[in-house]
Amino acid sequence: MLTQTTEYALRAMSHLAYMPDGLVSTGELAQFTKVPSNYLAKVLQLLAKADLVTGRRGVGGGYRLSRSSSEITLLDVINAISPIKPISSCPLGLENHSGSLCPLHSKLDEAARVMINLFGDITLKDVISEPGRNRPLCDTEMTKKVDLTLGQS
Amino acid sequence: MLTQTTEYALRAMSHLAYMPDGLVSTGELAQFTKVPSNYLAKVLQLLAKADLVTGRRGVGGGYRLSRSSSEITLLDVINAISPIKPISSCPLGLENHSGSLCPLHSKLDEAARVMINLFGDITLKDVISEPGRNRPLCDTEMTKKVDLTLGQS
Repeated sequence: MLTQTTEYALRAMSHLAYMPDGLVSTGELAQFTKVPSNYLAKVLQLLAKADLVTGRRGVGGGYRLSRSSSEITLLDVINAISPIKPISSCPLGLENHSGSLCPLHSKLDEAARVMINLFGDITLKDVISEPGRNRPLCDTEMTKKVDLTLGQS
Repeated sequence: MLTQTTEYALRAMSHLAYMPDGLVSTGELAQFTKVPSNYLAKVLQLLAKADLVTGRRGVGGGYRLSRSSSEITLLDVINAISPIKPISSCPLGLENHSGSLCPLHSKLDEAARVMINLFGDITLKDVISEPGRNRPLCDTEMTKKVDLTLGQS
């Protein structure tokens, strides 16, 4: 439903939200998000262009959120990469269309608006604040610790 | 939100649902859906592979729905092209993941399930039966007629 690039952007933004102090290096981001480094660089460029992250490339560089995680919704991130748009005019490009959508595109418009409301209501802060979880993303280090504990019991 | 190919498939299926008697030529389908012919041929191949349409290519050929429009949901069509999948396992590919989804992927899973329920509840028959509309798609011929009527008044 979401593109791969969008999903990668959401991973990166979730990790940045979890690390609000200072710049996070692209190496660390790649490690925790499991996004290939070259791909991640392009994703970060798109996020910077949409003014969702600030930072600098290269040695000693890194990124951080451009504003608080409570002020960035999942929809903001999605729209920076591959926007979800309501259908407000005829997608068949008919010049003399009366202005009302046909039944098919009315249904698709309805679905788009449901997604816009759903993702627009979830901030990055909500993602990192989910109860019972330490991190917003699946975490190898954490699960390794659990495995070791189980092994010792 | 949906891919262009998926949206084209939905247009084609809506028109086929509206014309249940006999085969509909690819020329007619291209005309009403405004999908480029070459692209439409590929879309129809995917729909045939998913057993949603039956027909034959070439001169005198055409397509029809493989079952009643009341038995095909928009989700069936979407899944034939670019499936909406719930997230049931860690998309980060972590072998030792505990089995529960992280907060980010829980939210994405929730969104996918909302879409699955929404599109799974709408059949092609619903699309062609919307009250107050003659056709499921925007229709140049119909709007031309309306314009002529208005011009005569």
